[in-house]
Amino acid sequence: MILSEMQFRVRYAETDQMGVAYHGNYAQYIEMGRTEWLRNLGFSYKKLEEFGVMLPLINLNINYLKPAKYDDLLTLKTTLLKRPSARIEFGYELFNENQELLTTGQTTLVFVNMKTNKPIRIPEFLLKIIDQTIATSS
Amino acid sequence: MILSEMQFRVRYAETDQMGVAYHGNYAQYIEMGRTEWLRNLGFSYKKLEEFGVMLPLINLNINYLKPAKYDDLLTLKTTLLKRPSARIEFGYELFNENQELLTTGQTTLVFVNMKTNKPIRIPEFLLKIIDQTIATSS
Amino acid sequence: MILSEMQFRVRYAETDQMGVAYHGNYAQYIEMGRTEWLRNLGFSYKKLEEFGVMLPLINLNINYLKPAKYDDLLTLKTTLLKRPSARIEFGYELFNENQELLTTGQTTLVFVNMKTNKPIRIPEFLLKIIDQTIATSS
Amino acid sequence: MILSEMQFRVRYAETDQMGVAYHGNYAQYIEMGRTEWLRNLGFSYKKLEEFGVMLPLINLNINYLKPAKYDDLLTLKTTLLKRPSARIEFGYELFNENQELLTTGQTTLVFVNMKTNKPIRIPEFLLKIIDQTIATSS
Repeated sequence: MILSEMQFRVRYAETDQMGVAYHGNYAQYIEMGRTEWLRNLGFSYKKLEEFGVMLPLINLNINYLKPAKYDDLLTLKTTLLKRPSARIEFGYELFNENQELLTTGQTTLVFVNMKTNKPIRIPEFLLKIIDQTIATSS
Repeated sequence: MILSEMQFRVRYAETDQMGVAYHGNYAQYIEMGRTEWLRNLGFSYKKLEEFGVMLPLINLNINYLKPAKYDDLLTLKTTLLKRPSARIEFGYELFNENQELLTTGQTTLVFVNMKTNKPIRIPEFLLKIIDQTIATSS
Repeated sequence: MILSEMQFRVRYAETDQMGVAYHGNYAQYIEMGRTEWLRNLGFSYKKLEEFGVMLPLINLNINYLKPAKYDDLLTLKTTLLKRPSARIEFGYELFNENQELLTTGQTTLVFVNMKTNKPIRIPEFLLKIIDQTIATSS
Repeated sequence: MILSEMQFRVRYAETDQMGVAYHGNYAQYIEMGRTEWLRNLGFSYKKLEEFGVMLPLINLNINYLKPAKYDDLLTLKTTLLKRPSARIEFGYELFNENQELLTTGQTTLVFVNMKTNKPIRIPEFLLKIIDQTIATSS
């Protein structure tokens, strides 16, 4: 349901002494996936915050199947898991250059009004863009 | 089932522009919890790696209930979720100074022989320490 | 000139595939040193930001003499290099448990009014505390 | 003296509560610059480590002129400061999309034999590539 792809290299800084990408860094990786997913809709998370809406996580879940290594060129696929309302859920798949699936993940985020710090429903303009994109791609 | 507690402060470096501890850093926080949990058994993760055994994650799951802020003094409680065999599972609860529960988490790790890079069962000496500690504390 | 000491352990997350603490993490380490230096004056950087003053860096300089390793218990010594005005300069020395000097560093920070985003002189109340502490300790 | 350019976006994870890219992350940024500089020579840092040579830092020096913000598309220019021998020195300039110079930096690294953990001179094959590239570009 609306798929976005991006590529990036594992930084040396991101390795640990096991000689692989440190597991905690995948939270950053999949966040880049969400950012590019939004950009592909013609929108940006930066603009969302400028409109006074932020998207904190309430759940992060990552499965590590195979390690990523320094300088590996990874491909991250981000998909919307269902039509968002108060929450928005994404799924992630991370592949290396040999098309091996390294990691899968899911995140649940909530829309929050930055002034009141209270949860809100997804802004209408964003839901409209999502609905249009779903309609177009199906 | 064998509880370990530790405290630490949120670093400025760990904040993001939402003004709270960045969600990705909790992977580091709960890892410190595991490290101290092992140290409390009279063991250390460092020694485990020196014995040729490492403990990569296969699953990370974190629920974010309330944010932690810069310089907050947090208390992390780490518990063993069940008697380990090929896998070891931990649960985590993170509290602020007002005893508010901020975050819960679970991780599943596997024992891996660093030479062969293959999964192994938990080393006997470590299982013995765990069994003795469970027996003593019940 | 006003010395503050603190201790911390190298996190697994902070290692890289050279098997040592990643050099980029020392910026976080010495920042903790500044935070504790301020706390020792009976003040906190958190309060400073609440007063509308922030302290961005304009220079970071670190010399790496020997590596720090995972789980090493490090001692960080932070000193004020001179009486602050528009800038505040700190020096840092990092030691391992064998009292080996691992790293030296210096940082220059500026006082900035968070509303105007302009540089300002050090707030009077903070300069007073520093002057009193210098007078007492000499 | 041999210039390499690369672009990247500031990650959300890299911001701090000042609302800008955290100063400590620039060590990672300029490291990416070195990595791409080497790749542009037809070489890679990954291969260098596979040959048993690593390049730890002995000095890091960064000047912060203007902040970088979340999602900014930055351009990093990396240059070799002089012909390397036992040490290799790089200079860095970081620009935002408005061609404003945000940051300058320098690093000094040493060549180390990973088996003996002792400093060595730059490997001959790498020096040859550098000399040829300098000759070609002048």
